[in-house]
Order: sequence, then C-alpha cells, then structure tokens
Amino acid sequence: MKLASLNQGRDGELIVVSRDLTRAVRATDIAPTLQAAIENWDALAARLEQRYAQLNDGQAEAAFELDQAALHSPLPRTYNWADGSAYLNHVQLVRQARGAEMPETFWTDPLMYQGGGDRFIAPTEDIEAVSEEHGIDFEGEIAVITDDVPMGVGAEAAADHIKLVMLVNDVSLRGLIPGELAKGFGFFQAKPASSFSPICVTPDELGDAWRDGRVHLPLSVHLNGDKFGEPEAGPDMIFGFPELVAHAARTRHLGAGAVIGSGTVSNPDANGGPGKPVKDGGVGYSCLAEVRMVEKILHGDSKTPFMRFGDRVRIEMFDREGQSIFGAIDQQVVKYQPQ
Amino acid sequence: MKLASLNQGRDGELIVVSRDLTRAVRATDIAPTLQAAIENWDALAARLEQRYAQLNDGQAEAAFELDQAALHSPLPRTYNWADGSAYLNHVQLVRQARGAEMPETFWTDPLMYQGGGDRFIAPTEDIEAVSEEHGIDFEGEIAVITDDVPMGVGAEAAADHIKLVMLVNDVSLRGLIPGELAKGFGFFQAKPASSFSPICVTPDELGDAWRDGRVHLPLSVHLNGDKFGEPEAGPDMIFGFPELVAHAARTRHLGAGAVIGSGTVSNPDANGGPGKPVKDGGVGYSCLAEVRMVEKILHGDSKTPFMRFGDRVRIEMFDREGQSIFGAIDQQVVKYQPQ
Repeated sequence: MKLASLNQGRDGELIVVSRDLTRAVRATDIAPTLQAAIENWDALAARLEQRYAQLNDGQAEAAFELDQAALHSPLPRTYNWADGSAYLNHVQLVRQARGAEMPETFWTDPLMYQGGGDRFIAPTEDIEAVSEEHGIDFEGEIAVITDDVPMGVGAEAAADHIKLVMLVNDVSLRGLIPGELAKGFGFFQAKPASSFSPICVTPDELGDAWRDGRVHLPLSVHLNGDKFGEPEAGPDMIFGFPELVAHAARTRHLGAGAVIGSGTVSNPDANGGPGKPVKDGGVGYSCLAEVRMVEKILHGDSKTPFMRFGDRVRIEMFDREGQSIFGAIDQQVVKYQPQ
Repeated sequence: MKLASLNQGRDGELIVVSRDLTRAVRATDIAPTLQAAIENWDALAARLEQRYAQLNDGQAEAAFELDQAALHSPLPRTYNWADGSAYLNHVQLVRQARGAEMPETFWTDPLMYQGGGDRFIAPTEDIEAVSEEHGIDFEGEIAVITDDVPMGVGAEAAADHIKLVMLVNDVSLRGLIPGELAKGFGFFQAKPASSFSPICVTPDELGDAWRDGRVHLPLSVHLNGDKFGEPEAGPDMIFGFPELVAHAARTRHLGAGAVIGSGTVSNPDANGGPGKPVKDGGVGYSCLAEVRMVEKILHGDSKTPFMRFGDRVRIEMFDREGQSIFGAIDQQVVKYQPQ
C-alpha cells in the first residue's frame, strides 16, 4: 500500500494514495497521522490495506485527485532519524579524494549518524540555506520506517520491523563538514533538515525489486532539469536495511516511527573505478560531492560547484514499467530570510 | 512553575507539581502532554501557572500526593535531543588523559552532538545495558526545553525560547566511544537512551541561581549511596544555554520540545588543575570517566571501574534552602534481557 501525509499541522493528516499516484483518500478515521499508524501498525495495517484496495478499485468513498504539492514528508517529524552510509563506493571516494585509506572494518561495521528529526522539509518545499559558502548539496537516498524495535535485535528479526520505504534528500552542508567532523562529535550543523518523498510504500509494493532488504531499482536524480544520475540502489548497498536497523538498535530500543536511511546511493564504474558522469555514458551520481571527488581524483581539481540559490534538485524512482513509485522530491535552494 | 509527566502512554500525561514536590494535580485538560504544552506555550503557560499557584496555595481541586516513581522523564520522547559539552574542563581532561591538546577554537565554538530522542528512560527506571564490557557510565548534566526556535537565532533572542530546565543522566558507553568516534560519524551506539529528572521547572523557579543562562547551583551525584560529586554547575560552563540553543539552530529551525543539554558538569580544582575526589576534599565529579582520567593523569592508571550490573546512580539538585528542585534521577544498571 501507499501512504502519505497532507501538509496540515505538525504531523500531517494521514491519507492513502492509489498505486498510480493519481488519487487519494483520507485515512484519519483509522489513524490521524502516520506516526499514530506506525505506533499501532499490527492493529491498523489491515484496515489501511483495505482502503487502499478500495481506492485502486475506484470504490473508495470521498476519494480525491492527488496533488503531490499538498503533501508533507510522510513523517513530517520523527523521534529518531538515523542515516547509514551503506554504499561504500561513496565512502571510498571521499577517502580517496583526500588521500586516505578506508579502514577494513568499514566492510563489516556500518557507518551511521544520528540526525535531527524535529522539522523535516516538505518534498516540494524550498531548502532554506544561510549561505552558499556552506557548500549546499543534496544526497539521494532510500529510507525505511520501522515500528518498535527491541534493543539487540538481529538482522533477520529486524527485517520484520521494516514497515515502509521512501526516498530521502539528505541535505548536506559540505563546507561545514570538515570543521564539524574535526571536533569529533559528528556532523551536527552540517546536516540541516532533510526531506522525504511525498509517498511511502510497504515493501510488497516493490515486488521483486525488494529483496535482500534492498531496493533493486535505479534512483533518478535531476539537477536543474538535466539528468544528473541514475545509480542502481541495489547491488552496491553493502549493508541491507535489516543490517542497518539492527546496527541502530544495538544498544537501544527504537521507538515506532524510527527512520533509518541508506546513505547516498552510489555505484562504482563497471571496471571498479570511480563512476562516470551521465554525459560520459556513466550512471552518474546522487550528490554533488561525489562528482566533485571524481573530478578531483581524475583531474586534480573539482569543477562542478555546489548548489547555488535558485538551483533545483529532483529525486524520484520508477518501477520497471516507468511508473513513479514514491512521487518526486523536487526542491529549490533559496536564501534563508530570517523573519 | 514545576511540571512533570505521569508514566502513561508514549508521551506521558501532564501534571503540575507543587514547589516542595509533595503534591501534584493533573493538567491534561489544559494540554494532554508536555509536548502539546510546549507547542502552544504562549497560549497555555498562563493557565498552567494559575494551576500551579492554586496547588501551592492548597486550593487545587483533585490534588494528590506526588509519587516520583510514577513519573516519566518530563518529555518521555522528543523530536530533538542535542547535547553540548560546555564544561571545557571535562573536555580538557579527556584530551590530557590521551596526551592530546585541546584546539583553541573549542573556547569559541561549542561542541554538540545529536542524540536519539525516541525512547528516554524514566528517572527511576533501570538502565538496561547489553554488557559491562561497554564501559557503562552516567553523566550528570542540565538541559533546557525550548519552544519553536527560528534558524539563525542569536544568543540573546535564543534566551527567550528557553522555557523549562531539568537534569539529565546522559548514559554513555565509554568502551564504544573510541571505535565510534574513529569512524567519524559521532557517538551513535555509544550514546544509548538517556533519562531526565522527574520534574522540569520554568527558569524563574531558580530565582537568582538562574543568571547568564546558567544554573548557579551544585549538582549532587551519588554512586551506590556515597557522595561522588557536587560540582558547581554555573561558573565553569563556558557556553550558557542561550549560546548552546543558538549553536543548535545555526543551520536549522528547532521544533518545539527540543531538548538542549549542557554536557557533563565539571569543575577544575581551585589551583586550576584536575578536580579532586570528594574524599580528598574536592567537589568530585558527575561522571566516572572524569575520575578515571584524573587518576590516569595523576597516577598513570585509572582504578575506578565503570558501572557494573547492580550499581546505582542518583542525580539531584538542591536550592540554597536544601529543597530538591527537580526530584531525583535514581537508577540502577541491569543486564538487558531480550524478550
């Protein structure tokens, strides 16, 4: 099934969305918000599925035409947003660009940072940034929403706690990352509010593209209308979502509504080297930092700039029939104007 | 005024607590939860204050005897838990113990990490830990709760967004910190669920002990019934709470209910050297890591162990008349038993 949140109030209002994203129907009588639904998933999922079936069959009362611009991120805020970095090709490039080796343990012990979940951006809302000097970047990713996950869960059991899948734009301020990481306390100021695809879906909606706890489809990323990347999200994700959820829960219980991200989707080139840009016949990238690193490795210098005010990024994923699965994150960067 | 949450449901039920912590009265008719109250603070605070006055005057209908054991942390969960490290004496000791210099920028640019807020521990609930090998430690701290804070706020304006004050036990797994920090993504697995004092208070409750955005009172810490520390929370806090809130909001808006922590309360000795243990006439410490660092610096080796299963920590703060302000965090460490 496909769910979304109307952009009303701090937590949105729960709606069910048709498979083809054209129609929707309110579900606030079942659960007022997606957060409330995920907290009572076992009790409520069947009723939501029933409404979804009615909607797809044209039988849902009071169905309406879906306007993606009226949607917030599926969870407009969450108590736990933790983002992995499971595409180690991306991590290797970061290291290579600064002449450092990637530790061997990175192949067995996932990278994950704790993000702030108090105020996500809506999928088509502007990305407010204080300064272009901060090195504004997007990161196209996939994320899952879990129900309550007990501390110490193994990866196999963690898989059952993955209830919904969506896309992420993990907005990053590259200019602030080196200073923040040097302090040793994580990204903090370098990771402002993120946004998510307008629609989230249960894993069964992905059909056989959901296997091994990964989404085996390309992620479509456009920058100012030009295709910037179409990396495959499946094969190079070193840790699947069940492993990432288990990692997040190693020393703590996760509360229902926890959002666990994959990290920037990234593929090496067919020969194992850094991936090529789309214009050179490669699959491209899902963040600007990566093309800049590749430029630096190949040519000694980065020439692609970070985002400037007015730049627009679009992140979407299509099934094998060309149907948009999650709707589009489509955002412009604007200069923040204090009130 | 003093507020707390009965340990019911995921977000608790809002109560008003008398100044002397003996009596309480429900406030769920004004706001069902503290989260709901802080989201509408300007509209609701006066009504809560009125009920608080009635309670203190013995005029509140349906008042009842307060049982601190029935309380959860004031916000049983929050969308944003960000913890500073504003007592640089603590940071200097960490560095000194491993033979590293503290960068000069630490005096002007606060350290802060993003914590997970999805499932705090109740103030008298057991601290479940997977293994003693993880180096289980407490950290006695102070934290504030804000309403909505706009991105880019200055410290002066940030002060007006500080609505409530409480204590924290920022549970830390010292054995996991070096490995996590080496990965560069922050503490993650090394910072499991924290707990907070059962009662939170508006800054005016602190009288002249609240000045310069700091709490000028000693923090009382007991380990297994013995006094472990009574460090002064005011003078050595290099960044006040308004500065910490402004730091947290530099590149993002903070949603109402954000909890911003001070970091481990820590005092240098009168001569500027590492603080002495209580038994040697010092003010002691508010975490085990610090006494271990001092032992290492003075004697070449740490002899105080981290917490073991069955150990108990109590964190409290008293006003100048000896009245407990926030109630007590009083927790035992137990071995986690998976269900």
